[in-house]
Amino acid sequence: MRETDVLRLINTRVAASGDDAAILPFRGTNLILTTDMLHRESDFPVGTTARTIGWRSIAVSLSDLAAMGARPLAVLLALADPDLDEGLISGVLDGALSCCKQAGVQLVGGDTDRQHELTLVSTALGETEHPVRRDGARIGDLICVTGELGRTAAGLSLFSTGEIEAANELFCFPPRVAWGMKLADLATSMIDISDGLAHSLHLLATQSGVGVHIEWEHLPITPVLTSQVAGETLQDAVLFTGEDYELLFTAPAGLIAQIDPSVRFTVIGKVRKQGTLLNNEQLPDRGYEH
Amino acid sequence: MRETDVLRLINTRVAASGDDAAILPFRGTNLILTTDMLHRESDFPVGTTARTIGWRSIAVSLSDLAAMGARPLAVLLALADPDLDEGLISGVLDGALSCCKQAGVQLVGGDTDRQHELTLVSTALGETEHPVRRDGARIGDLICVTGELGRTAAGLSLFSTGEIEAANELFCFPPRVAWGMKLADLATSMIDISDGLAHSLHLLATQSGVGVHIEWEHLPITPVLTSQVAGETLQDAVLFTGEDYELLFTAPAGLIAQIDPSVRFTVIGKVRKQGTLLNNEQLPDRGYEH
Repeated sequence: MRETDVLRLINTRVAASGDDAAILPFRGTNLILTTDMLHRESDFPVGTTARTIGWRSIAVSLSDLAAMGARPLAVLLALADPDLDEGLISGVLDGALSCCKQAGVQLVGGDTDRQHELTLVSTALGETEHPVRRDGARIGDLICVTGELGRTAAGLSLFSTGEIEAANELFCFPPRVAWGMKLADLATSMIDISDGLAHSLHLLATQSGVGVHIEWEHLPITPVLTSQVAGETLQDAVLFTGEDYELLFTAPAGLIAQIDPSVRFTVIGKVRKQGTLLNNEQLPDRGYEH
Repeated sequence: MRETDVLRLINTRVAASGDDAAILPFRGTNLILTTDMLHRESDFPVGTTARTIGWRSIAVSLSDLAAMGARPLAVLLALADPDLDEGLISGVLDGALSCCKQAGVQLVGGDTDRQHELTLVSTALGETEHPVRRDGARIGDLICVTGELGRTAAGLSLFSTGEIEAANELFCFPPRVAWGMKLADLATSMIDISDGLAHSLHLLATQSGVGVHIEWEHLPITPVLTSQVAGETLQDAVLFTGEDYELLFTAPAGLIAQIDPSVRFTVIGKVRKQGTLLNNEQLPDRGYEH
C-alpha cells in the first residue's frame, strides 16, 4: 500500500486526533503526545552527519508539539543500527541533546536495538491548556508562515553537489516550540509544513471547511534556495518538497499586530470561502511521502 | 558495541531514571513515559502472526508502566515495513487494539514508514502519584513474582516445533497493568522481568543496595514449559531467557496478606544483606540481549 492509504486504514480504527499530535485532557490541561520515525535511506542523504541525524530526529517531534502550541515536557529516542558503532551513537546523542537544549526540554529515556537499517524514533510529550488545532481557520483570517521556506530543499541540493557542511547546517533546523507557544493564544489554526506547503494548506482548508488563497510573491523563500534554482524547479521545491518544519497558521487580521515580535513570520494569503489557490489558480494537492 | 555498552554510554549523558520508565513530576502527580523498539529478526520468530506482532508491540511498553505501578493514559505505535501490506497492517492493528482494550487504554496515534525490516516502536504514557522504583527493596522484604515463569521460552520452543497456534497464544502475554496498580501501595521495589529473571534480580539488588536470595523450588514455572524441557535446559529457560513480562517485586512480609486477591503472585525468596543467590549459590548475571 501507499503510505497515504495506510494512514487512511489506520485512521478508521485508531482514536487519532487528525492533528499534528494526540491531545489528552489531563488535570485541567492537555497532554500532547507525538511520535516520528526516520530512517537512513529516505530521510538522511549521503553526507548527513551523526550529529545532524540526532538533531533532526528530535526536532521533527518537537515541531509537532510546536504546531499545537504546546510546551515540551520530555523527549524519548529509540535508535536501531546494524553496528551500534560508538562514533555514531555518540554523534547522534550530541545532536539530540543539543536540539533538546535549544528547545528547553530533557531527553529522559529511550531504547536501542540492532537491525539492518539505521532507524530513529522520537517521542515528544508536551502540555497546553489551549491546543491549536487544524480545524479552526475562519473566513477572513490571514494565512501566515514562520521563518523561511525551502530550507530542506536547499539542503538536499547542497548534499547532492557535495557542499556537505552547509547542507548539514541547513538540515539542523530549529524546532519552533517557543514561537508555537507564543502563537497559541492568537492562532485560529496551525500545522507544521513537514508534508510540504501545498499539502499542509490543503489539510488546513479541508479540516477547517474553508478555502485558502495564497500569493507566490509573498512567500518568504530562503535566499540559499533562490541562489541555487529558479523557475519551475524553485516553485516545486517551495510548494511540494516536504520536511521543512516551519509553522503555517491562520489568525484574525486584527490580532496580527499583537503577535510577539520575537516570532518571525510572513503573511502569505487569506482564508476565503472555498478553493486552495495560488495566485488565483488551483494549487495541486501533491503530498510529500516520507 | 554491545547493547549493554551502548546503554552505559547513553546513561552517562541522558537524564534517564534508571528505571523501567521515565518519571516526570507534573501537577501533583507523576507522568510515566516509556518507549520500546521491536523488529522482525530478533523479536518475532517465523510463524508469529501479524496480530501477535501488534499485541506484543503494545504489551512491552504497557509492561514498563505496570512495573512502575502506573495507570496507562495513552499509547502510540510507529510501524515500518518493506511492503506495508494491507493484511499485515490490519493484523498488527487488530493485535495492538486488542491489547490496548484489555489494558483499558487507547491507541491515540503513531507513524508509518517504509524500510527494510519490519520494525515497531510503541510508546506508553501513564500516571501515578507513587511510582514504584527499583531501588526500594529493604532487608527482610519478601521477593515475589506475578503469574508464571517461562511463557516466552515455551512459546519459542513451540514455534521451533511448528506448533504455531499455541506459540502465538503464549506470545500474546497480558500486560500486568491492573496488578501493577494494585501492588503500587505495598511494593517497596518493582521491575518487569523482560531482561530475564536472573538479570532483573541483579538489577533490583544493585539498585537497592541489598542481596536477594531465591529458591528454585518456589519458582512458579509454567506447566507448558515443564512439559517440554527439564534439567539444565529448563533452568536456563526460566532464569536467563528474557521477554517474560511478569512483575518482580519486593514487599514487607507483614503486608503480603493485604495484596488484592485478584493479583496472582508467588513468594520466591527474601531480601538479605548481600549476594544474589539461588538456593544459596551465586546466580550468574547473564543478561538477555534483545
